[in-house]
Amino acid sequence: MITHGAFPAEPWTIHESMLDLGVLAQSESVFALSNGHIGLRANLDEGEPHGLPGTYLNAVHELRPLNYGESVYGNPVASQTVVNVANGKVIRLLVDDEPFDVRYGSLERHERVLDMRAGTLGRHAVWTSPAGRQIDVRSTRMVSFTERAVAAICYEVTPVNGPVQVVLQSDLVVNEPMPERPNDPRAAGSVDAPFVPELNAERRLRTVLVHSTRRSQLRVGAGMDHIIEGPENLQTETISHPMLGRVTVTVALDPGQTLRITKFLAYGWSAQRSLPAIEAQVEAALTAAVATGWVGLLRKQREFLDLYWSRADVQLDGDDEVQQAVRFGLFHVLQASCRAERRAIPAKGLTGPGYDGHSFWDTEMFVLPVVTYTWPEAARDALRWRHSTLDIARENAANMRLRGAAFAWRTIVGQECSAYWPAGQAAFHINADIAYAVIRQVEATGDVDFEREVGLELLVETARLWMSLGDVDASGLFRIDGVTGPDEYSALADNNVFTNLMAQRNLDGAANAAVRHPDVADRLGVTADEITGWRDAAKNMTIPYDEVAGIHPQAERFTEHAVWDFASTPPGNYPLLLNYSYRELYRKQVVKQADLVLAMHARGDAFTAEQRARNFAYYEGITVRDSSLSATTQSVMAADVGHLGLAYDYLGEAALMDLADLEHNTRDGVHMASLAGAWIALVAGFGGMREMDGRLWFAPRLPERISRLAFGMCWRHETLHVEITPKETTYYVDDGEPIDIHHYGEPLRIVPSVRQTRPNQYIKAGPRPMQPIGREPRRPV
Amino acid sequence: MITHGAFPAEPWTIHESMLDLGVLAQSESVFALSNGHIGLRANLDEGEPHGLPGTYLNAVHELRPLNYGESVYGNPVASQTVVNVANGKVIRLLVDDEPFDVRYGSLERHERVLDMRAGTLGRHAVWTSPAGRQIDVRSTRMVSFTERAVAAICYEVTPVNGPVQVVLQSDLVVNEPMPERPNDPRAAGSVDAPFVPELNAERRLRTVLVHSTRRSQLRVGAGMDHIIEGPENLQTETISHPMLGRVTVTVALDPGQTLRITKFLAYGWSAQRSLPAIEAQVEAALTAAVATGWVGLLRKQREFLDLYWSRADVQLDGDDEVQQAVRFGLFHVLQASCRAERRAIPAKGLTGPGYDGHSFWDTEMFVLPVVTYTWPEAARDALRWRHSTLDIARENAANMRLRGAAFAWRTIVGQECSAYWPAGQAAFHINADIAYAVIRQVEATGDVDFEREVGLELLVETARLWMSLGDVDASGLFRIDGVTGPDEYSALADNNVFTNLMAQRNLDGAANAAVRHPDVADRLGVTADEITGWRDAAKNMTIPYDEVAGIHPQAERFTEHAVWDFASTPPGNYPLLLNYSYRELYRKQVVKQADLVLAMHARGDAFTAEQRARNFAYYEGITVRDSSLSATTQSVMAADVGHLGLAYDYLGEAALMDLADLEHNTRDGVHMASLAGAWIALVAGFGGMREMDGRLWFAPRLPERISRLAFGMCWRHETLHVEITPKETTYYVDDGEPIDIHHYGEPLRIVPSVRQTRPNQYIKAGPRPMQPIGREPRRPV
Repeated sequence: MITHGAFPAEPWTIHESMLDLGVLAQSESVFALSNGHIGLRANLDEGEPHGLPGTYLNAVHELRPLNYGESVYGNPVASQTVVNVANGKVIRLLVDDEPFDVRYGSLERHERVLDMRAGTLGRHAVWTSPAGRQIDVRSTRMVSFTERAVAAICYEVTPVNGPVQVVLQSDLVVNEPMPERPNDPRAAGSVDAPFVPELNAERRLRTVLVHSTRRSQLRVGAGMDHIIEGPENLQTETISHPMLGRVTVTVALDPGQTLRITKFLAYGWSAQRSLPAIEAQVEAALTAAVATGWVGLLRKQREFLDLYWSRADVQLDGDDEVQQAVRFGLFHVLQASCRAERRAIPAKGLTGPGYDGHSFWDTEMFVLPVVTYTWPEAARDALRWRHSTLDIARENAANMRLRGAAFAWRTIVGQECSAYWPAGQAAFHINADIAYAVIRQVEATGDVDFEREVGLELLVETARLWMSLGDVDASGLFRIDGVTGPDEYSALADNNVFTNLMAQRNLDGAANAAVRHPDVADRLGVTADEITGWRDAAKNMTIPYDEVAGIHPQAERFTEHAVWDFASTPPGNYPLLLNYSYRELYRKQVVKQADLVLAMHARGDAFTAEQRARNFAYYEGITVRDSSLSATTQSVMAADVGHLGLAYDYLGEAALMDLADLEHNTRDGVHMASLAGAWIALVAGFGGMREMDGRLWFAPRLPERISRLAFGMCWRHETLHVEITPKETTYYVDDGEPIDIHHYGEPLRIVPSVRQTRPNQYIKAGPRPMQPIGREPRRPV
Repeated sequence: MITHGAFPAEPWTIHESMLDLGVLAQSESVFALSNGHIGLRANLDEGEPHGLPGTYLNAVHELRPLNYGESVYGNPVASQTVVNVANGKVIRLLVDDEPFDVRYGSLERHERVLDMRAGTLGRHAVWTSPAGRQIDVRSTRMVSFTERAVAAICYEVTPVNGPVQVVLQSDLVVNEPMPERPNDPRAAGSVDAPFVPELNAERRLRTVLVHSTRRSQLRVGAGMDHIIEGPENLQTETISHPMLGRVTVTVALDPGQTLRITKFLAYGWSAQRSLPAIEAQVEAALTAAVATGWVGLLRKQREFLDLYWSRADVQLDGDDEVQQAVRFGLFHVLQASCRAERRAIPAKGLTGPGYDGHSFWDTEMFVLPVVTYTWPEAARDALRWRHSTLDIARENAANMRLRGAAFAWRTIVGQECSAYWPAGQAAFHINADIAYAVIRQVEATGDVDFEREVGLELLVETARLWMSLGDVDASGLFRIDGVTGPDEYSALADNNVFTNLMAQRNLDGAANAAVRHPDVADRLGVTADEITGWRDAAKNMTIPYDEVAGIHPQAERFTEHAVWDFASTPPGNYPLLLNYSYRELYRKQVVKQADLVLAMHARGDAFTAEQRARNFAYYEGITVRDSSLSATTQSVMAADVGHLGLAYDYLGEAALMDLADLEHNTRDGVHMASLAGAWIALVAGFGGMREMDGRLWFAPRLPERISRLAFGMCWRHETLHVEITPKETTYYVDDGEPIDIHHYGEPLRIVPSVRQTRPNQYIKAGPRPMQPIGREPRRPV
């Protein structure tokens, strides 16, 4: 846990007031900058010390062979793994021949500030060298939201207590040596020295390097250019080697004199384009960036963010920490998605190598709900990325003798990279999760082109998968056997309720969309019989129910298993997956992350209010939340059943996941789904927002601590504004078409410029449900 | 498949009348010699060509790291794998400088004969060199049953058509290069050059080499000595290098003159003893072997086998192939077990590196039933080996927070080596299988010392495992969830009937034995309450039953799954495990090997005759027999329910598994369980033999093709003889105590020297059950 208390709850910034090397790696993730295409971990300018050096380009990966002690048919033979590309962040400084290194000499002051409105990471250090020379160093770093291929750094050094001879080396480094990785299944498998050089060139203050990955055969170009301002005596030298570009500046500075370097970075890559083409692309981006200049980049960055926050901001009165955290979450979600442009949104964004840089189902189930309502263009592009992997998914299904498409459980560019199939390839629900995101995207945006070009085919091919994966039993019910639901402490069960309800929506959604676009459906080979089959399967879907216990088992017979012995499980044994084998976990009632409870969020219409309350209380008692994906959903459903205090506590955990490093692996990158979760917990939890029948439904109710909650939601080219106080809720749109919503089930038409206010309704909940001992919501103090 | 028709059905020999290099590796397994301590694959004397060079010492293994694409807690980090030790079989021959190699020149004649009464492998070759010199080569090879550390070869060469200069090199070779292995999960992971040298010595015609394994740190000594007979001009030279011992004989032979070499081999190994101790052990064994001499070794070998066959022989009139095959099976089972002496009996014996040389549950469930009734001392020792791994098994259980002992699914010296846990470590039934073998051993031998020293502790510790693995449900029933039964095309199911019934017998058996030996039980901490707990759990064991279908599901809800689409499965896609992923197999009704049907054999008392018939017919329709373990059990149960023709067909498949290479992997070693299965199919199938309440029960009924079946069974120091004709069955013992048996449920006391004859009873069976298309019993023609 990051316990140095360095992040005071400022509404629009994350402010680190001192440097704690013990949490350096975590801070590199928290302060990472990205636009979805380029990602820069917040490594110190001088390169060392570092937790984990990291510069990423979305989808640039290497292949890593997968080995198995005992091979079984169908396991993937190689995994894609994100690689650290050429690092252009490095600016080394020598002060009278002494390297500026915070581990030596004396660090008088060290601050970093992530400014979420400016879109920059600022740093200010005052350092006294071992020889007694004091310098003031300021740097500001940005990854441009508007210029996809560009990042920039402004770096200033000023002597404080006497003249110094300064040598500054601005580097671009390929194949940086990586530190040893811990043996944690959630971390990445490392690939040493993934790149082979292809070209290096220098001209004036610019260098360009092109290199390619050994196995995945991707060509990457990286370049840097500089504007240098300082006293007249300064001298520069530019060199390039196959793995290194370097601009060296030598200057004598008097106290108060400043050397200022603006460093422009540009990247380009391709699996297909030639070496000259890649080099030219980088050169062009650099030239454009220099022409725009530092001030120009900053201005465009702020304009972009002003627009973003005008749509997406969430305001919260009564909890400054969560106010900060929800903006921090939105900022990272934006960073991960906005310029990904038909590339994946990885579980860690581009903030670290965790989970090998893979994308999972949580993109569609946790990240895209936020993106669709805050920056819908990015959600559309993410789903276009899924669509681009459709051929691979069809082949994957065919390899299992299934029809339609079976998407990879974890991947960077589409191929299945999951090497433990019971908790990977068997989790077929990812296909319904993708369908669910498609349906939402279409409803929220009304984007007909998207539905015709992308959405319908995704719905059809996933519906076909379910039809071939499931079977009709003797009594005519449709059943789906031997699959793994979201809870990874169970596996290979029959009729997982979440999976079946999501498949049901998938099938119905495919049928509805096919009817809407018969010409496209026809081109996809959809027949009337096929549509009837989808509707029948959806209608006859098996939803197990335990009549004795009066609850839904998360999968058939789940509630007949013995309950995990929580009393004998010491706190140090969590997360259980690092201390117990799956053969212990699978045969007991113990839930890693919301599964049936997630089904009640995503498909609340399939449960009565009484069922939701009983189910929620039951699963609270056996859910240990060993996944960062769980607290969000538990917060939403706690609010749903009226446990507003509990919902508030889960919100705190979800929102502070990375700022407080609750899972102890923020070092490998921030948890994008959990960061999105703060928004979900507020909007779907306390706002009671659900999507049904092409409408938004709200049932707002605030917990005691929150006196006002306001948020916007993009809906068909407009922004619906919702403002909730304890007693009442106000809805309005600025202009455009009217928006039809429901407030506690009551239809409501919101017309432009008319604020409509309705009272909130509170429900009486029973006693607060208990969690397993020691697994109560953890909001850091 | 071995299709050259080279094994005519001779009753006491396996006779190969020509050399087919296409099946060389298979023949090396079929003709392998072993005494359970040393194993020699039937590699040609001259070393090359070879399928797979193999010389094994029971339990000598190397450690091989296990890797996982995605690591999960509790997976073993290393596997034990059998290694090819110093090869002393090599006798290279040069004829006028031309190496004798069957691939060159002209092989006029080549015969090999495995003599199952003599315990030898003979070879006779007539070869014409490329230069036209013809020679006659005869060799005979043995691994001594009576001298555990000794093997010997008698090798003779005689010119046929003119004088030749002969150079003969008798080698002892360490770290032979191994051929590339196929990518088959059933084969071994190879370990290159496992040995490092420690000592080499030569004296007269003897060399001794000592070497040790790199990681497992085992020290192995191997020596050879020679007696050489030939014309006076012969010269010899002896050398030793760290990895090679060689005795070279040079001689000029006239036609009809014979050079005769008797080569004695001795081995010793230890994880603890010193280099001098190992060297001395090998020297002593060599000296003793030379003193006994070739003729002496042959005589003792035959005396030993005469005794063995007097107990164990099975006579069968009407099917010469099966007559030969059942003796072949018994011979290999004897070879694998008789001098194993508290080491494991591997799945392939010491005939090849298949399955890494590991032992599995089939030792207790398929091999030991035969050994207990034919050479009970060896079965006792095999169970003492299991007992010797009890501490490891207790630790394994404790690591899973279970009580008692959880034995390794696959291992050489006790540690778990299973790297795919759903089909390995989750198959907890192995513990009940061991208990079952203990109960049988005690009942069959009345060996009180064994029960007190070994048996009771094995029963108690496995009973404790079940008590902690299972749970009592709300209705008071005892259930065992999330385990894998014998059928590896299902996994991690609840209340597997086989597992539960075997656990039930385990629990009752532990209670009974504890009551018989209260002092030992007390020492093991067994209390009266604990015994009551075992009996209660056994009494309340959950045995699922599908009322609708009127059959037992092999595990809970199994029969609700869709049936595998056999019609769309092409013949080339078997075995399914090499062509379908487990995520396809697990969720369908398709059975790799008898599971519920095996339960009906092992626990026939738990089913009514009607249930057995219905269950058998049902499972016949979904069992594909992708395991060599299945045909035996299907034969037994087919006979049980009256389908004698079908039982006979399965017998043919089980008996001819290796002689006909039905599974296409005899190259890696013979299938010990299937070889034992021929005996089981005859004795338990057509003899209807079952063990219950400390008695043997018989229900003999012969199929049309068999006119007489006679076998012996060791029972409390005597041999019970059973002779079955179509109409009646005769029982007798030669002397000793009376033996109480049941004939068709009727109690019968067999007293010495009185032949008791009773009529057989046949039952009317329904229509012959159908197998999945293409999966009918396969008896090669």
